[in-house]
Amino acid sequence: MSKKNNDRLLVFALGGVGEIGKNMYVVQYANDIVVIDSGLKFPEEDMLGIDIVIPDISYLIDNKDKVRGILLTHGHEDHIGGLPYVLKQLNVPVYGTKLTLGLVEAKLKEAGLLGETKRILINADTELQLGGLKATFFRTNHSIPDSVGICVETPEGRVVHTGDFKFDQTPVNEQHADLHRMADLGNRGVALLLSDSTNAERPGYTGSERNVGTELEEVFRKARQRVVVATFASNVHRLQQVFDAAEATGRKVTVIGRSMVNVVNISQELGYLRISDGMLIEPEEVNKMAADRVVILSTGSQGEPMSALTRMARNTHRKVDILPGDTVIISATPIPGNEKYVGRIVDDLFRLGANVIYGPGSVSGVHVSGHGSQEELKLMLNLMRPKYFMPIHGEYRMLRMHGQLAENVGVEKENIFICDIGETLEIQNGTARKAGKVSCGNILIDGLGVGDVGNIVLRDRKLLSQDGILVVVVTLSKQDGKIMSGPDIISRGFVYVRESEGLLEEANKIVSNTLTKLMSENVNEWASLKTNVKEALGRFLYEQTRRRPMILPIIMEV
Amino acid sequence: MSKKNNDRLLVFALGGVGEIGKNMYVVQYANDIVVIDSGLKFPEEDMLGIDIVIPDISYLIDNKDKVRGILLTHGHEDHIGGLPYVLKQLNVPVYGTKLTLGLVEAKLKEAGLLGETKRILINADTELQLGGLKATFFRTNHSIPDSVGICVETPEGRVVHTGDFKFDQTPVNEQHADLHRMADLGNRGVALLLSDSTNAERPGYTGSERNVGTELEEVFRKARQRVVVATFASNVHRLQQVFDAAEATGRKVTVIGRSMVNVVNISQELGYLRISDGMLIEPEEVNKMAADRVVILSTGSQGEPMSALTRMARNTHRKVDILPGDTVIISATPIPGNEKYVGRIVDDLFRLGANVIYGPGSVSGVHVSGHGSQEELKLMLNLMRPKYFMPIHGEYRMLRMHGQLAENVGVEKENIFICDIGETLEIQNGTARKAGKVSCGNILIDGLGVGDVGNIVLRDRKLLSQDGILVVVVTLSKQDGKIMSGPDIISRGFVYVRESEGLLEEANKIVSNTLTKLMSENVNEWASLKTNVKEALGRFLYEQTRRRPMILPIIMEV
Repeated sequence: MSKKNNDRLLVFALGGVGEIGKNMYVVQYANDIVVIDSGLKFPEEDMLGIDIVIPDISYLIDNKDKVRGILLTHGHEDHIGGLPYVLKQLNVPVYGTKLTLGLVEAKLKEAGLLGETKRILINADTELQLGGLKATFFRTNHSIPDSVGICVETPEGRVVHTGDFKFDQTPVNEQHADLHRMADLGNRGVALLLSDSTNAERPGYTGSERNVGTELEEVFRKARQRVVVATFASNVHRLQQVFDAAEATGRKVTVIGRSMVNVVNISQELGYLRISDGMLIEPEEVNKMAADRVVILSTGSQGEPMSALTRMARNTHRKVDILPGDTVIISATPIPGNEKYVGRIVDDLFRLGANVIYGPGSVSGVHVSGHGSQEELKLMLNLMRPKYFMPIHGEYRMLRMHGQLAENVGVEKENIFICDIGETLEIQNGTARKAGKVSCGNILIDGLGVGDVGNIVLRDRKLLSQDGILVVVVTLSKQDGKIMSGPDIISRGFVYVRESEGLLEEANKIVSNTLTKLMSENVNEWASLKTNVKEALGRFLYEQTRRRPMILPIIMEV
Repeated sequence: MSKKNNDRLLVFALGGVGEIGKNMYVVQYANDIVVIDSGLKFPEEDMLGIDIVIPDISYLIDNKDKVRGILLTHGHEDHIGGLPYVLKQLNVPVYGTKLTLGLVEAKLKEAGLLGETKRILINADTELQLGGLKATFFRTNHSIPDSVGICVETPEGRVVHTGDFKFDQTPVNEQHADLHRMADLGNRGVALLLSDSTNAERPGYTGSERNVGTELEEVFRKARQRVVVATFASNVHRLQQVFDAAEATGRKVTVIGRSMVNVVNISQELGYLRISDGMLIEPEEVNKMAADRVVILSTGSQGEPMSALTRMARNTHRKVDILPGDTVIISATPIPGNEKYVGRIVDDLFRLGANVIYGPGSVSGVHVSGHGSQEELKLMLNLMRPKYFMPIHGEYRMLRMHGQLAENVGVEKENIFICDIGETLEIQNGTARKAGKVSCGNILIDGLGVGDVGNIVLRDRKLLSQDGILVVVVTLSKQDGKIMSGPDIISRGFVYVRESEGLLEEANKIVSNTLTKLMSENVNEWASLKTNVKEALGRFLYEQTRRRPMILPIIMEV
C-alpha cells in the first residue's frame, strides 16, 4: 500500500488502557482497521448486579467496512470474553492460535455464533495480509499456552503489541518465547510498542513456571493423604505440572469444576495437555482409593462463591469431602478485591483440619505470575527498541511506572504516551501525537441486557442496597379526591417489620395526616401529593432511624 | 480471695477471636468479671448498609452485678469503639491510660455519656483490686502511644492479655516496652496467655517505627514542592515523626481531616505529641507559602471515599489542590478490602502529576506495621512461658499459625486452645478445657438502630442491590372483587424505564391476564393472587432478561 498525503496511523484502545481487563486495541491506517483482542472484565464493586463489562464498540460499528478482522493474542477471558457480544454486532473474521481458537469456539458454540463466524487458524509463522496492513506474530510466555505477540506493519512503520507476556527461560512443554524474532523486529525498526504493564510495579524477574512444578512434586510427596490443587483452569502449563507431579508421586488425578473439566478436555484434545493413560479418574472413584494416591484438581482459586473449592471448604460439595489431614494447595494469587474471599476459604479449610498451602507465590512456592516483572519489561523494550512507546494493560499507576522503565532504558520521555481509553495516538510522517478521542466506554451486561443498565439504575440499586425501600400506596376517588383505601406502607430491606410495628404505624399516620392536610388545602395534583409524602415521611424516618430508605409513593385512582 | 471447691476461671471472647476487629474479652472467676477492651469493627461486604458492628453483650447484661469494669489496652477503634453502645446498657467503670482515656472521653462526649461514666486513669504501675481479682499492667509497643498489656491475677493463676503489640527496640519518644516486667511475670508463672495474632503469618521481625522517620526525612528533603503525608490519625508516633522530619527540613505542617485534627489536638494537649512553636500552620496559610516549605498531614490513607486525601486526589478539596510535582506519601498499608480504593487514589494522584510514594512498607520504606511478626510473637511466648495459650485477634488461619509458633517454642500442643467467639475456656484446679458457649454474636448498627437489621433485612438488601424491585399495585372492588384500578407496575433498579417501555407493557399484560384468569376461576384470596402474580411475572422477566428482581404485589381494596 502506498502512502498518501493525508493518511495517518491511528492506534487506540477501546478497553484495556488504564485498567486491568477487557482488552481491545485498534490499529487503523487509512481504510484498514485491525482489532487486537476482544476481552471482558468483571464488574467493579459499585456496579451492583452487573455480570460482566465489555467495551463500547460503536467506533468499529461506525467503521464496519474497514474492519479487516480481530487478531487474538491468547485465550484468557480478558482477551476473548467479549467476542460473543462483539461478533453479534460486527461479523468479522477472528484470527487465533490453536488453543486460543479452541477456547473461542467453545464460547461461540454456547452463544450460537459458531456457524456464522469465520475463524482462521494462525501460528507464529503466519503472515496475514489484512487490506493494506500486514500482520506477523511471535511466540511469548504467559500463563496459558499458545500466546503470541503481534506485529502490524503499516506505511508508518511497525506497531508491535506484546499481548500478555513474561520471559520464562525454562518453560513447561518447551514453549519458548521467540527471542530471535523479537530481536529481528527490533533490528528492522519498531515505530510503536504497546507492552503489558501488569507487573510494572514489581522489581526483578518473575519466577519460571518450572519452579512451581518442583514445589508441587515436593508437596505431593510429603502429603500423607489427599491433595487438592486449586488453580485457574486456563493455566494449562500449571495443569500439566499437576499431572506430572501426580504421576511422579504415584497419584491419580480427578478434575472437578465446570471450567476445569472444559479446559482439560479442550487442551488434551488439541495436544496442549499430555495425560498418561489411566492417570485421569472420575470424581466418583476418589472415595474408593487410598487417600495418598489421589490428587483433586479444582476450580475456586479466587474464592468464587459457587466454585468447587468453596463448596468443599463449606462441606457442601456433592462428591468430595475435605478430611482432617488432607492438603489443599491454592496455586494462584488473589485478584485485587478477592483477598477476603480466599482468606475465608483458607480459614474454613483449616477448620476442617486440612493443611493449607496458600499466600503469595514468593512465600508458598506454588504459584508464579504470568506477567513479566520490571527486568523483563526492560528486556522487551531493549529487544524492540521502539521509537514510540505506549504502556498498556494495567492501572494508571502501573502504566506510569512502565513509562518510567522505558525512560530508564533510553526511550525519549516525549515519545512515551499514556493514553486513556478512546484517546487516539496518531503517527503521521514519523511524528506521533495525541489526536483526540473516539467514542468509547463501558457497556454493562446484566443477564441478557447489554447496556440497558445505566447510571440511574445503578444509583437506585445502590440506594436500595443501603437502606431498602418503603412503598406507600393510597387509592383516591376520581370524583372528590378522597382517600378510598390506604395509605398502606410496605417495606423491604429497611427494618424487620415484626419488630418495628410502632415505627411503621407512626409512619402511616404521618402519611395520612400529610394527605389529609394537603386535600383540605385543595392540593390534589399527584406530583405535589407524592413529593409532600416523600418529604414528610423521609424526614420522620431519618429522625427516628438516621436512615434514608428509598420512598416510593404510588397513587391509584378509582 | 480464697478458692472454693467449685469455683473456676472462665476466659472467653465476645469479639476478637477468629476475626480482626471488635475486641472484647471476658475474664471471670466466681462472682467477679473483668472485661478487656470494647471494640467495634467495620462491616463485611455482605452487610449492606450497615455502619459498624459491635459484640453481643447479653452475657454481661445477664451478669451485670458481677462486672467490675472494662480495662482498655489502647485507644484504637477496634478496642474502644464499642464503648458508647456498651456503656448505654452496662454502666461500669472504664480503666485506661492517659491517651486512651483522652480518646475515649472525646467519644463519650459525642454520645452524651461523659457525665455518667466513671473513668479511672491507670498507668503501667497501677495495681487494681477488682472484686476478688487483681489487675496489673505492662507497657507495650504499638502503633499508638500508651498501649499496655494486662495481667489479671486469679486464684487459678495469672491470665495475661498482650493487647496489640510489637517489640520496637528503638521506639519513638522513648516509649519502651516493659521487657523486665514481662520477664518477671513469666518468672512468677503465667497460667494463660492471650496474644495478638495479626502478623502471625509474617516471618521475621517487624521494622522499628524509627526507620520510618529516617525515610520520611529523606523524602521531605528531596521533594522540590509540597509534601502530603496520609496516615492513620491515631498513629501518634507517626505524626510525631512527620513533625520532626518537617522541622529538620525547614517545612511547616498543616493538618487536615476531622479525625487528624482531633488526634493532633488531644495528643498535643496530653503531651504525647511535641510540636515546636510556629511549626503548626492553618490550611489557609498553605497557598501563601513557598511550596518547598510545606507539609500537609492528612487523613485518607485507606482511600476512604469522604476523606481529605480522596478529595484532594479528585480535585474537590476546599482548601488544598494537588499540583504537578507535589509529593504524596501514603504512610499506611491498606486494610484487606481497601486495596482497590487506595489504588484508585494513587491513580488519580498520578494523573494530577504528583509523585506518589505508596505500596507495602517493605518497599516504600514509609510505613511499618504496629503488630509483631513471628519472631516477636515467639519472644512474647518465651518471656511469658505460659502453661496454656490462646491466640487472639486474627483470622482463623492466623490463630492456627500462632498456635504453631507456640508449639515451636515449647508450649504443649494440647495446651493450645483456639476458641471461637463465645466459646469458653475453663481452668479449674490447674486444668484447662473448653467448656461450652455463652451467647454471643454480631450486633449490626445501622444509623440509630442497634441490632434491628437482621438476616431477613440483609437478604432483602442483597436482592434489591442485584436486580432491583418491581412493585405491582392493583385496586380491587370489595363487592365483586373486580379490578377497579391498575395493575400498575413501578420499577426501581431493574431497567431504565424509558428504554424498556415495551417490556413493562408486556409485563403489565401478564399481570392483568393472570388476575383475570384467576378471578374467572373464582380464586380471590389475596395470598393466592399475590403468589400467582409473582410467579407469572417472575417467569416472564427471567425469560426476557435473565434477571430476578424482587417482585412486590400490593392489593388495595375499595
